[in-house]
Amino acid sequence: MALGIDPGVSRCGYGVVVRRGGELVAREAGTLRTQAGDDLGVRLSALAEALAALITRHRPGVVVVERVLFRRNARTAMSVGQASGVALVAAARAGIPVVEVSPSEVKLAVTGDGAAGKDRVQAMVTRLLRLPSPPSADAADALALACCHLWRAAPVPVAEPGDGLARAVAAALAREAR
Amino acid sequence: MALGIDPGVSRCGYGVVVRRGGELVAREAGTLRTQAGDDLGVRLSALAEALAALITRHRPGVVVVERVLFRRNARTAMSVGQASGVALVAAARAGIPVVEVSPSEVKLAVTGDGAAGKDRVQAMVTRLLRLPSPPSADAADALALACCHLWRAAPVPVAEPGDGLARAVAAALAREAR
Repeated sequence: MALGIDPGVSRCGYGVVVRRGGELVAREAGTLRTQAGDDLGVRLSALAEALAALITRHRPGVVVVERVLFRRNARTAMSVGQASGVALVAAARAGIPVVEVSPSEVKLAVTGDGAAGKDRVQAMVTRLLRLPSPPSADAADALALACCHLWRAAPVPVAEPGDGLARAVAAALAREAR
Repeated sequence: MALGIDPGVSRCGYGVVVRRGGELVAREAGTLRTQAGDDLGVRLSALAEALAALITRHRPGVVVVERVLFRRNARTAMSVGQASGVALVAAARAGIPVVEVSPSEVKLAVTGDGAAGKDRVQAMVTRLLRLPSPPSADAADALALACCHLWRAAPVPVAEPGDGLARAVAAALAREAR
């Protein structure tokens, strides 16, 4: 089971994904929010507690956090890094290993395009996990992180050439087309 | 009393400065280090514990953390943000308010030049706090953060025009020249 975290102070996406047979299933996903008017330390501390509670509830085998490279938005960069640090400590304190994945790796894994927009990630996560309705953009990013790691860790077995992910994507698209 | 923190995962500078009469005095300063080979979560968790211990030992009235804007070094940016988040949570959990200060504000406060290099900050901190020998660059940055905040919060009283900081800098330079 993997807990994906799309770090942020105002909005932090999370998604818990478990492998069942050859398929991935979402257990829980959502967005943790903190109060804009509060002291930054208090907001990060509230986030730390919410993440620790999530980890205690699900006991994931791994926590997958988005690694942001900060070329694009220097203004939000610091708070994304701060939220990420808090998430990594919450995982370490529970004895859970952490994996950092870059946004382009996630987009590539889930949509087949490393430069895909948030809406495509959202749409593909909804299909791949057969969700009844699309999750919020933050929750979708977090679910995509978890899926990306679980596919890498043990690809879905395939009889033909091509990786498990490509097959899973194709199968999801085929279901969609029916 | 202010605890300045120059956040970083490999090396995190800290400096405790207290106001005594019209002067600032360094209580303790140094660099916290984490093991390069360890899991990032474990490193950040170790940093969190070391910072919590520092806070418990000194009970500062404020924690002053460097706010980095990430225009220059995108590679180290994420880990600086992560360490900063950990420091902010350590402060908040101890009920201590947090102030973020930008590098240019600190440099301006301590050297009179917002674009000063690390060596000048180091030299001026050594003079202003009358240290027997220059602290490491990380510790000097942290001490400078604490000084910058304490000067802002309550400038050293002056009889003549000019702010307390300018006077303190002038006095330090005069001492140096003797």
